[in-house]
Amino acid sequence: MNIPTIDLPRVVVIGAGFAGLQIAKKIDKDNYQLVIIDKNNYHTFQPLLYQVSSAGLEPDSIAYPIRKTLRNKKNTFYRLANVQHIDASLSTIKTDIGDLEYDILVIATGADNNYFNNELIEKNALPMKSLVNALDLRSKILGNFERALNTKNLTKREELMNFVIVGAGPTGVELAGALAELKNKILPKDFPDLDLRGMNINLIEAAPRVLANMHEVSSEKAHQYLKKLGVQIWLETFVESYEDNRVTTNKGIEFYADTFIWAAGVKGCFPEGIQASLIGKGNRIKTDGYCKMNATENVYVVGDAGLIETDKYPTGLPMLASVAMQQGQYLAKYFNRKVKGKETEEFNYVDKGTMATIGRNQAVVELGKFKFQGILAWIVWMSVHLMLLVGFRNRVIVFVNWAWNYVHYNNGLRLIIRPYRKRQNVIGIKPLRKVKG
Amino acid sequence: MNIPTIDLPRVVVIGAGFAGLQIAKKIDKDNYQLVIIDKNNYHTFQPLLYQVSSAGLEPDSIAYPIRKTLRNKKNTFYRLANVQHIDASLSTIKTDIGDLEYDILVIATGADNNYFNNELIEKNALPMKSLVNALDLRSKILGNFERALNTKNLTKREELMNFVIVGAGPTGVELAGALAELKNKILPKDFPDLDLRGMNINLIEAAPRVLANMHEVSSEKAHQYLKKLGVQIWLETFVESYEDNRVTTNKGIEFYADTFIWAAGVKGCFPEGIQASLIGKGNRIKTDGYCKMNATENVYVVGDAGLIETDKYPTGLPMLASVAMQQGQYLAKYFNRKVKGKETEEFNYVDKGTMATIGRNQAVVELGKFKFQGILAWIVWMSVHLMLLVGFRNRVIVFVNWAWNYVHYNNGLRLIIRPYRKRQNVIGIKPLRKVKG
Repeated sequence: MNIPTIDLPRVVVIGAGFAGLQIAKKIDKDNYQLVIIDKNNYHTFQPLLYQVSSAGLEPDSIAYPIRKTLRNKKNTFYRLANVQHIDASLSTIKTDIGDLEYDILVIATGADNNYFNNELIEKNALPMKSLVNALDLRSKILGNFERALNTKNLTKREELMNFVIVGAGPTGVELAGALAELKNKILPKDFPDLDLRGMNINLIEAAPRVLANMHEVSSEKAHQYLKKLGVQIWLETFVESYEDNRVTTNKGIEFYADTFIWAAGVKGCFPEGIQASLIGKGNRIKTDGYCKMNATENVYVVGDAGLIETDKYPTGLPMLASVAMQQGQYLAKYFNRKVKGKETEEFNYVDKGTMATIGRNQAVVELGKFKFQGILAWIVWMSVHLMLLVGFRNRVIVFVNWAWNYVHYNNGLRLIIRPYRKRQNVIGIKPLRKVKG
Repeated sequence: MNIPTIDLPRVVVIGAGFAGLQIAKKIDKDNYQLVIIDKNNYHTFQPLLYQVSSAGLEPDSIAYPIRKTLRNKKNTFYRLANVQHIDASLSTIKTDIGDLEYDILVIATGADNNYFNNELIEKNALPMKSLVNALDLRSKILGNFERALNTKNLTKREELMNFVIVGAGPTGVELAGALAELKNKILPKDFPDLDLRGMNINLIEAAPRVLANMHEVSSEKAHQYLKKLGVQIWLETFVESYEDNRVTTNKGIEFYADTFIWAAGVKGCFPEGIQASLIGKGNRIKTDGYCKMNATENVYVVGDAGLIETDKYPTGLPMLASVAMQQGQYLAKYFNRKVKGKETEEFNYVDKGTMATIGRNQAVVELGKFKFQGILAWIVWMSVHLMLLVGFRNRVIVFVNWAWNYVHYNNGLRLIIRPYRKRQNVIGIKPLRKVKG
């Protein structure tokens, strides 16, 4: 790979997510050369992907070009590449555009869906981890309603209009809520000739409550909100398989749905070459309290891919954007102090709260001891997400969209831009009663 | 196809472009059943496609869901389908979702690129006629700069950074201007480690001047603007072939470019089944002055696909959005009067002027006798395009983007969202001079 060599230690960061971007922004470029590598040329604001899927936001407003964040930063290089292998013994990474040596490596590659080794589900489920996934899902949802109009087979039509979302964490809950709002407010006007009562949104969760990582009060309120919107919730239910539009569960209940979205779990995700002994729970790489990978001196792991086991979090810190951002900031500070011979204390996660939105005026928020729900929570949720978005332009565009939707229930992003597969359900000629010559 | 039969004549409109959308909006639904069919579920504002290609606007802001325009309109049906064949003798169309009979058919299918039977060019050139084309082009342009960083082969690098645009009509001129602004204002900050002097924008035109359909004063000014921005203009030059990144011309001049964009001409585009004798110049279907296809009583053609030869326009009306919109409005009025037994005069095109923008503060406008250029023309150009955009939300978003770009030269839409091909130019390990252990 074509990176100039300069008289500074080279820090290579893999991944421009919440953690990687913080390091890239805050590391001291007088003392380090920074190389950041990502397989996309943009940073994705994952918490709002579900709104792209459900036609609430345009994709461009929740992504941000990596090069733009690095502007005017000296000794900084970005490369668009897939990292294929890490060789810690040689301090080298192998990518699809060549190899690169590092002095310090930061693995900030995040997480991918965890299908718990269920190959059928992995093959047939729709993921929602990237912008491309979200756009594919948007096109599929909208395309299925167009297809539903063209079939007289009622079973087939219901399958096209049924949704199964597995996992009632924040992603599953938020997506279910957004789909329910589509069903209630938008699709009936778009598809006056389709009976939308046939559209079912099923949210399946293995735990005994939705948002199981939040307080019971929040779970209960979120459950109420979802029910009110018409989402069908199936708790303590495990999905066993999904094939040919058929979902089977451990409870014997079956669902028939053309759209099956997996939001039931994630696992750490990183290039090959990490020793198996260094990989812990949830496929995350074990690190010490300084985010340094065990058994190495110059490899660090931050964000979802890293596993710090603390007394408070014996199974590792939660896989959340806020952990990743804090770790990225921490590691930049750690490096900046280290080069000056100063020590830094171990990483300490400050839990700033969790929240989820279910729909219009409906959210649940937990900030330390404070728990609240409803419209105030919803305003807090929106404000926090607007603040966290990278780029002022993106904030303006997202704000315009949200304000527009709030007033009009309708923002007009229901475009099927992706190529869609040729449909098979052709209906024969319907006799037309000629009334004029 | 699954359309209810009712006691009204059924008007089937193929294509939801500028012409089709006007008919769909304005036809009297108390007296007609309207069925509109399009291969996309959205209307595309083609005049701004070039700004999507050059990362100036998000795709969602220049497209508008067809179903949303048809809301609350009775006796109106939209279907997402490809029309494959028209059988005028049976008053039936064949589509990929089934057949459909019509009482009245309106062909509003627009135009496609005209490669003048040059197969090599057709195979290798990039078109810019659809939103998908524009997004592909955006990804290609941005991807090529990323690739240029990874090659040490200077010839290869120049090919990746060279652009050839064929055709200096409004599309070619506007795209060349937008690419020049990318080169001058945005890419140098995004790619500080790439020498952008190697980026060449070549605009090739067969006519002796750019914007040959406008007045000479406009051509001259546009030419000056383009030169000032650094666009290389080649007049009276025909491209003969394009293969393996090599462009050959009738003048013996060759260009080497990985990006070759065809904007040199369009031709009418419509489903199979139209008799050859009814097809005229530019592959357009001949109609009488009422937009009615010759030799039929119930088939009409509007927009780019139709050919009305008048005294003023002996080779047909120009293939412009404004002609299409006026014809759509005319035909709706014609049908609405016809059903009441009233006659309507022949279609009369009112030329409201032409304009093109070259870049920041630089446009040329002709409104009847008035010709003006520069910042005033640029403001007029923007205002007219904002007004013509469908949907208030789209206008707001486009306005925010333009205002932002004007102030910051930079709006952050440079995302490579499409899947890109695996790159081949892998560079070997660059020796890293270790400075710290």
